[in-house]
Amino acid sequence: IMKFLVTGGAGFIGSNLVTKLLSDPNNEVICIDNMYCGLDSNVAPHLDNPRFKFIKHDITEPLKEEIKVDRIYHLAAPASPPFYQRNAIHTAKTMFLGTLHMLELATKTGARFLLTSTSEVYGDPEVHPQKESYWGNVNCNGIRSCYDEGKRIAETLTFDFHRQHKTDVRIVRIFNTYGPGMREDDGRVVPNFIRQALEGKPLTVYGEGNQTRSFCFVQDTLAGIMSLMEQTETLGPVNVGNPIENTMLELAETILKVTGGKSSLNFQPLPSDDPRKRKPDITLAKQYLNWEPKVLLEDGLKVTVEYFKKRLNL
Amino acid sequence: IMKFLVTGGAGFIGSNLVTKLLSDPNNEVICIDNMYCGLDSNVAPHLDNPRFKFIKHDITEPLKEEIKVDRIYHLAAPASPPFYQRNAIHTAKTMFLGTLHMLELATKTGARFLLTSTSEVYGDPEVHPQKESYWGNVNCNGIRSCYDEGKRIAETLTFDFHRQHKTDVRIVRIFNTYGPGMREDDGRVVPNFIRQALEGKPLTVYGEGNQTRSFCFVQDTLAGIMSLMEQTETLGPVNVGNPIENTMLELAETILKVTGGKSSLNFQPLPSDDPRKRKPDITLAKQYLNWEPKVLLEDGLKVTVEYFKKRLNL
Ligand SMILES: NC(=O)c1ccc[n+]([C@@H]2O[C@H](COP(=O)([O-])OP(=O)(O)OC[C@H]3O[C@@H](n4cnc5c(N)ncnc54)[C@H](O)[C@@H]3O)[C@@H](O)[C@H]2O)c1
Ligand SMILES: NC(=O)c1ccc[n+]([C@@H]2O[C@H](COP(=O)([O-])OP(=O)(O)OC[C@H]3O[C@@H](n4cnc5c(N)ncnc54)[C@H](O)[C@@H]3O)[C@@H](O)[C@H]2O)c1
Ligand SMILES: O=c1ccn([C@@H]2O[C@H](COP(=O)(O)OP(=O)(O)O)[C@@H](O)[C@H]2O)c(=O)[nH]1
Ligand SMILES: O=c1ccn([C@@H]2O[C@H](COP(=O)(O)OP(=O)(O)O)[C@@H](O)[C@H]2O)c(=O)[nH]1
Ligand SMILES: O=c1ccn([C@@H]2O[C@H](COP(=O)(O)OP(=O)(O)O)[C@@H](O)[C@H]2O)c(=O)[nH]1
Ligand SMILES: O=c1ccn([C@@H]2O[C@H](COP(=O)(O)OP(=O)(O)O)[C@@H](O)[C@H]2O)c(=O)[nH]1
Repeated sequence: IMKFLVTGGAGFIGSNLVTKLLSDPNNEVICIDNMYCGLDSNVAPHLDNPRFKFIKHDITEPLKEEIKVDRIYHLAAPASPPFYQRNAIHTAKTMFLGTLHMLELATKTGARFLLTSTSEVYGDPEVHPQKESYWGNVNCNGIRSCYDEGKRIAETLTFDFHRQHKTDVRIVRIFNTYGPGMREDDGRVVPNFIRQALEGKPLTVYGEGNQTRSFCFVQDTLAGIMSLMEQTETLGPVNVGNPIENTMLELAETILKVTGGKSSLNFQPLPSDDPRKRKPDITLAKQYLNWEPKVLLEDGLKVTVEYFKKRLNL
Repeated sequence: IMKFLVTGGAGFIGSNLVTKLLSDPNNEVICIDNMYCGLDSNVAPHLDNPRFKFIKHDITEPLKEEIKVDRIYHLAAPASPPFYQRNAIHTAKTMFLGTLHMLELATKTGARFLLTSTSEVYGDPEVHPQKESYWGNVNCNGIRSCYDEGKRIAETLTFDFHRQHKTDVRIVRIFNTYGPGMREDDGRVVPNFIRQALEGKPLTVYGEGNQTRSFCFVQDTLAGIMSLMEQTETLGPVNVGNPIENTMLELAETILKVTGGKSSLNFQPLPSDDPRKRKPDITLAKQYLNWEPKVLLEDGLKVTVEYFKKRLNL
């Protein structure tokens, strides 16, 4: 029997991880989430499973009980800009205190701890594609800082626990991921475009749409994260993401193709500090994890569109 | 009557600030310090002053009483690498929780809050000299990260309190400062070299000594900080430092000249992530604060050497 703690397990990636872990009958999973941006429908399917336990708890507060597990997947953190900017102070507390509490738990119980860091630690990168050795270009007092700097100091804490207490840690830097389990009102570009396309509304393109992201399907991302958790060659940070880069205009086009939608584009102001380009160098993931993404954008979007159609009763 | 809170007031810059504030008979000063690296001798001269109050308290813990002041100078944070690296986790907590607690106090009481940030937010800079608009080049998981990333997220919190709660804030980015009030075992380069020179021991130069810093005398730094606190044109961040740049070899030479010492140089390994060069662009300080440093390195070092001679009974 392997016991897992997944923080943020009601969220997008977390809920896919919980489902995957529970698919192995030898695994038990505890999920901690405060439901700030998680979905009930992400948790509901597991509530009858005796190998699953849900704890509603805000990780900025100390845990009320000691939790004995073998592995801590630490995902809790609002990941979409509208959600993480709504109460930026709370976001920074989630990043710092949440990570601190989970590292303290790992240190006390001997559990292995994995931090889901992010490509946002590279900020608006001046090195392209981004290697793990690149130190990033991040504004430390702008409207994205609570998230970007929050994850950066979470990495600091993670390595300092390892240096100071020999805590068994791993760090993955996830690049933009999409798939079933996202909220329709999540605010990130993939759910926004899909919902708009399905509802026949104009797609809201921020700026001129020439900025790029590299989109990875959630099952690919999960395989990378889970492989990092179980290997012993590196603590990370290791990039996990899809090296195929697209502009937001290309994404809009692909989503219109997949949905068969006919929406026009509605150009909106570009939010401040929005990274202009982003693309992972996945040399380390290939080397240590023998990992690379397999799902093509169009194929992953098809599955995601079906998911949103169901949620929106279309 | 103006009431001031100075966190870290038993430390090097903090104690000079307290002395300066108390020199105005209309000022009252409360000092909070946990004495992790403060000096009793920095506080002792004021203990009989009815306008001074000392509270021994670790700012990672919430305050035990509400403190009503007009101004909060938030300096508490170990500033020397050997001190801030000794317990890196505690340093990160001091940075994050200490700043959070002081911002909460400022928000609750309406006090104006000033954060003493640092040139370390620029890391090992690739832009030279450093302007406030430069986003920096910082390793987020190395041995200096608890300090550098700690100050970066402290800036984040400060601006987010301003954006979210309209807290009245200022941020100064201090560059290397020296002068009376430092510990002889502080570990930073100026006290190390002076003590070694006075004791006739070899000066410990890390690396080849070609790295640069720009050293500002504490009274100059103070004038900049205090001017920023009282102006209303900018929240900052504003650089306060001396734009005259020196290599560590030049510093060693100047210190030997001022002390009349004959020490040789003892080259030691360069610690990891040690910034190769650093020099402030002080255009903003000139513009908003009408400030620039006045004390020449040799003159400031003479005063500092006299201070250390007394402390070392030489
Ligand atoms: N999805 C991506 O593209 C992406 C990219 C990089 C990194 N990540 C990281 O992966 C993790 C999961 O991302 P996601 O897309 O699933 O995010 P999400 O926003 O869908 O889910 C986050 C979950 O964390 C929970 N949560 C937030 N604050 C909490 C708190 N204080 N206490 C307890 N629970 C809290 C939310 O309720 C939500 O269920 C996050 O740490 C994110 O930073 C995601
Ligand atoms: N001196 C410089 O060259 C320089 C440069 C840039 C920024 N700064 C900043 O200026 C401030 C003062 O620097 P300094 O050189 O006087 O440092 P210092 O190390 O001499 O003094 C710091 C003081 O803070 C106190 N302190 C540390 N942690 C604390 C905690 N958790 N609770 C309460 N008190 C605590 C220490 O006991 C000490 O008295 C620091 O914030 C530092 O980061 C200094
Ligand atoms: O960014 C946020 C904002 C809110 N919350 C949760 O939602 C609750 C209510 O949030 P609100 O912003 O209303 O108030 P807060 O209690 O943070 O001041 C918080 O206590 C958190 O548990 C959160 O997790 N992240
Ligand atoms: O409705 C939207 C939402 C986002 N974006 C853009 O899409 C990119 C990805 O944004 P998202 O919030 O999904 O992720 P992140 O910026 O955190 O990578 C950014 O350049 C956004 O400005 C957009 O054009 N329209
Ligand atoms: O970087 C540090 C390390 C220690 N301390 C103070 O010194 C005390 C004892 O420190 P130690 O590292 O021994 O233990 P801790 O209590 O931090 O685990 C702490 O509680 C703090 O008050 C501090 O302020 N900064
Ligand atoms: O005994 C010493 C202490 C420091 N340094 C160097 O002097 C510079 C300034 O170091 P300090 O710790 O004073 O400040 P910071 O690196 O934080 O600017 C750095 O390049 C150090 O490597 C040195 O050569 N000898």
